[in-house]
Amino acid sequence: MNSPAPKPQFALFADALHQAARSAPESGIVEAMNYGREREGLIPLWAGEGDLPTPAFICEAATRSLAAGETFYTYQRGIPPLRDALARYHTGLYDRPFVPEEFYVTGSGMQAIQIVIAMVAGAGDEVLIPTPTWPNAAAASGIVGARAVEVPMSFGNDGWSLDFDRLADAIRPKTRALFVVSPSNPTGWTATRADLTALLALARRHGLWIVADETYARFWYGEGSRAPSFFDVMETDDRILFVNTFSKNWAMTGWRIGWIAAHPSLGQVIENMIQYATSGVAQFMQRAAVTAIERGETFVSHLIERARRGREISCSTLAATGRVRFAEPDGAFYLFFTVDGETDTWRLVMRLIDEANVGLAPGTAFGAGGERFVRLCFARNAEQLRTAVGRIASVISRTS
Amino acid sequence: MNSPAPKPQFALFADALHQAARSAPESGIVEAMNYGREREGLIPLWAGEGDLPTPAFICEAATRSLAAGETFYTYQRGIPPLRDALARYHTGLYDRPFVPEEFYVTGSGMQAIQIVIAMVAGAGDEVLIPTPTWPNAAAASGIVGARAVEVPMSFGNDGWSLDFDRLADAIRPKTRALFVVSPSNPTGWTATRADLTALLALARRHGLWIVADETYARFWYGEGSRAPSFFDVMETDDRILFVNTFSKNWAMTGWRIGWIAAHPSLGQVIENMIQYATSGVAQFMQRAAVTAIERGETFVSHLIERARRGREISCSTLAATGRVRFAEPDGAFYLFFTVDGETDTWRLVMRLIDEANVGLAPGTAFGAGGERFVRLCFARNAEQLRTAVGRIASVISRTS
Repeated sequence: MNSPAPKPQFALFADALHQAARSAPESGIVEAMNYGREREGLIPLWAGEGDLPTPAFICEAATRSLAAGETFYTYQRGIPPLRDALARYHTGLYDRPFVPEEFYVTGSGMQAIQIVIAMVAGAGDEVLIPTPTWPNAAAASGIVGARAVEVPMSFGNDGWSLDFDRLADAIRPKTRALFVVSPSNPTGWTATRADLTALLALARRHGLWIVADETYARFWYGEGSRAPSFFDVMETDDRILFVNTFSKNWAMTGWRIGWIAAHPSLGQVIENMIQYATSGVAQFMQRAAVTAIERGETFVSHLIERARRGREISCSTLAATGRVRFAEPDGAFYLFFTVDGETDTWRLVMRLIDEANVGLAPGTAFGAGGERFVRLCFARNAEQLRTAVGRIASVISRTS
Repeated sequence: MNSPAPKPQFALFADALHQAARSAPESGIVEAMNYGREREGLIPLWAGEGDLPTPAFICEAATRSLAAGETFYTYQRGIPPLRDALARYHTGLYDRPFVPEEFYVTGSGMQAIQIVIAMVAGAGDEVLIPTPTWPNAAAASGIVGARAVEVPMSFGNDGWSLDFDRLADAIRPKTRALFVVSPSNPTGWTATRADLTALLALARRHGLWIVADETYARFWYGEGSRAPSFFDVMETDDRILFVNTFSKNWAMTGWRIGWIAAHPSLGQVIENMIQYATSGVAQFMQRAAVTAIERGETFVSHLIERARRGREISCSTLAATGRVRFAEPDGAFYLFFTVDGETDTWRLVMRLIDEANVGLAPGTAFGAGGERFVRLCFARNAEQLRTAVGRIASVISRTS
């Protein structure tokens, strides 16, 4: 992507910074937002969040906790009621028992990723990441001095697919982990149970950690109430670290609260990593998270139904242009599409901001294989979404 | 410190972790808390926090923001009103102009440290840290693969002093930064303006970054309204990164909100580091922080007066035992003391939990030079503090 040349004074300071920090990339999503943020009437479909604020009953749990003076330091691993609630939530969703000691509360799903990456990789190590994918795991690897090795997925008539041979070929002596996002942001690809079994076998064979990002498990358009999960195929002693967040299921993107699920024997290491990152999550936030889990299922179902409707609207409207190609997403809440004849994704994003007044994220932000795509978030009310995709369709139906 | 031998299963998993994560130390402070946490009637002076919850007018600002639906993603660098408020706060406190572009909101002072350490150091680098000091900066250095090099301060008849020759001797080709906490947690030592000038000269001469942790600037028992600061002696182009927090001044320890002050030209790097750490701080927390700055001065003054009184109570009561040695702290809100004949700080901490029912932090938690000391936090109401130090005095007056 084009960036302006650094100013001399920046160069002065930046030259003295550590290479890993200096080279941490600017988020391509934020770059698009910066281009279009101030436009009057713009419909923002660039970020990974919907249009509903956090439900009042969740906010009120935080408010009550604040009023009760729960403003002191608390447990690094998370307050016991939230770890209990997470265990019950998983037990219900994955139909097998979980214990609170498997759960660690973090200051966002992003922090969960930051911590588990630092747990498994360091300077000179490599982390395999199928792409296109949300760029932050690769960036977090870079900051600890590791190299994110992109393994591009293929986009064909059957949608997105992961080439296991290609993945195996990318494993080298310094490879430490395999980062799997399923359902995938941005493609919507979702690993089948057979895929998960094959990935696990590969990881076992080479002694790799798996980082399983199952943030979008509930936003799943196939059979059953959630996407296939590594929880379905793993044994207790498999080296899998799960990262997740309250952001999507409960419309809590701005809160910055997530969790790690991991073997209880890793508890002290994870506690230490939390201690030296942000030293825990505000207790009043954790109270809200407990309420989200305990009383939020109706709301989660509502969000999922809305996303399902948004998916139909986006897919049907854009398919009707005859100029758009995409795989119908199996999960998550994004449509990742190309427009025939548009080879420059950044130019397409700017044009859609300028001419359709709709904000999308450029595919270049998601690594190898995404260069010609744009990402649209369809977790939004049907009316506004219909307007947005209608405007997009009319712009791309014109000859550019 | 003694730790139990790892269980076999932990060893199985831990062996596969990255060395830097595996060797991140357990917080010695938390270890003491774990030993005594459940004791009935225990007075906890081990943590760095007082006994007052966050004032209601600050909590209510968060509550209003939550009720207004400010629960979406927000600016990575912090919301503009908070960056404005931080600039005004600094302008008032340091009597020179600051601009909002110098301030970056972080998810705790700890995260500010994590980010600036990663900005200046990586694998194989060294960070100089005068000790005894709060251990988290050294641990954060270790996690990015850098080595924290402790430079012990001396404790003599004139209190704590930093030996500049010793510091200069510790500088090697891989030294990247000098981490200065002033006023110091745990010793209360506070750099004079002459000390700061000397430290800056040393850093300039060797091309080092200074990380200035001025968390306790307001808790200062000398002349004027705050401790001497690197802001008083620096030029615009000096490589100084400031870390700070809302925790202590406004009784917001549990919130996890802090800030970095740095040259505006570093903005994009800091934004990226925030993006890949926790991707920003909840907007409703930031609203509370704005209110803390704008309406919190009376409360801050109250906390400082309370700490001043706590300092008097602690120093006079313990001095009267005739068995205790300490330097009267110039700043911060801790008394760091030794007890004649007590060479094992951990044993002393446990004994004070068992016999005085008071929780202190072991000096071993604070690195080289602190081994024989214990830390007592005196930011507490006079009555309870008098009880606590009275109990300590009576235990240590007995022959052990």
